[in-house]
Amino acid sequence: MNGAIPTIPAGRHRTIQLQKSLLDRNATLAADNRELFQRHRVFAVNFVSGPGAGKTAIIGRLLDELGQRLRIGVIVGDLATDNDAQRLAGRSAPVLQITTGTLCHLDAGMVRKSLEQFRLEDLDLLIIENVGNLVCPAGFELGESLRVVVTATTEGEDKPVKYPVMFRTADVVLLNKMDLAEVAGFDLHQARRWIELAAPHALRFEMSARTGAGVAEWHEYLERRIHDSVAG
Amino acid sequence: MNGAIPTIPAGRHRTIQLQKSLLDRNATLAADNRELFQRHRVFAVNFVSGPGAGKTAIIGRLLDELGQRLRIGVIVGDLATDNDAQRLAGRSAPVLQITTGTLCHLDAGMVRKSLEQFRLEDLDLLIIENVGNLVCPAGFELGESLRVVVTATTEGEDKPVKYPVMFRTADVVLLNKMDLAEVAGFDLHQARRWIELAAPHALRFEMSARTGAGVAEWHEYLERRIHDSVAG
Repeated sequence: MNGAIPTIPAGRHRTIQLQKSLLDRNATLAADNRELFQRHRVFAVNFVSGPGAGKTAIIGRLLDELGQRLRIGVIVGDLATDNDAQRLAGRSAPVLQITTGTLCHLDAGMVRKSLEQFRLEDLDLLIIENVGNLVCPAGFELGESLRVVVTATTEGEDKPVKYPVMFRTADVVLLNKMDLAEVAGFDLHQARRWIELAAPHALRFEMSARTGAGVAEWHEYLERRIHDSVAG
Repeated sequence: MNGAIPTIPAGRHRTIQLQKSLLDRNATLAADNRELFQRHRVFAVNFVSGPGAGKTAIIGRLLDELGQRLRIGVIVGDLATDNDAQRLAGRSAPVLQITTGTLCHLDAGMVRKSLEQFRLEDLDLLIIENVGNLVCPAGFELGESLRVVVTATTEGEDKPVKYPVMFRTADVVLLNKMDLAEVAGFDLHQARRWIELAAPHALRFEMSARTGAGVAEWHEYLERRIHDSVAG
């Protein structure tokens, strides 16, 4: 095994077949959700990332800073615990926790079921925090208006190219924990190149949910998108 | 939605049925792998973690520090790229990359197929770096002698309770990036409690693959396990 590294693609046609029918069913339900959101003029954002990249902190900032101007609802997905929902509770927004058990993503049906707990006509923005996973949520549309992938400087530079489907399907990339970039030995130049390669159509915001640096630009963009959507 | 946070468990019996037959098939193949490893006296370690927790850096250290005393082979799983295999190449150990496409975990069949590229009789230790994912790899045994879950201080304290199956099935928890604990605002006391709650039978090593702090204890333990296994 000298020279080039042998690479074996794992062929699993049977699994892919099963997966396909699940995805088709999900796409139908996602289209229903999308129609429902449009009818009620709700802008839905699907936050995805690996574990611990900072989705909850980012959403907490958003509730704190936009919660007076926008009517926001939050759905949080996790395998277990309502830790994230607890972290987000006590602000103005209603928070609903979905526990998925062993399932690695939310799907459109779960979101639909959760919507019964909200009065959509009273919301401008529905935030959906997906399960912490850079793989499974990629194929499962929820009917969202915007898909936001969060990656942290502490995860290294190469996540966009190692999890290409997730980044390719994202509308926005939030590069979080910029305050830790230097101590983590993070190569920002390389990371930008890989984000642009994997997600050429996505907007990128470099920020720290903890310090608040760079957050204003992201919030301005989101508010503009929400207003355009309502006006459109 | 005042008071307690509403929690909706996502019931998806049909998916779970499909998943179960895949898991059963995998368990059979994993038992075959296990038998094969035992026959050749190969100690197999399955490294799992979320994206960017430091599996590759930990394995790199291991090859550098134990590569003279042990004959090691490495299998690396990723959706795409051979970045990790490249990072690990050029040492004494043969490295094989498996690309899984959209699949979020390695399975026993993929590992079996990869083993054809190794001479098992020439190995003491087979390292398997799984896809970066704290959910899917949990149910898919590979026939490993030891399952090691890596979590990083930069991911926060609560990953063990949020991804309970992965931690419950781990033999060893490596708490990595201890050098960044303070700047990340990491609460070590809370993290230890949650690791003990989620993985009460696992051994815990606190370390930094980057600085090398705490690595010696982990390597001593691993070497002892390998020697005990060969002697047993």
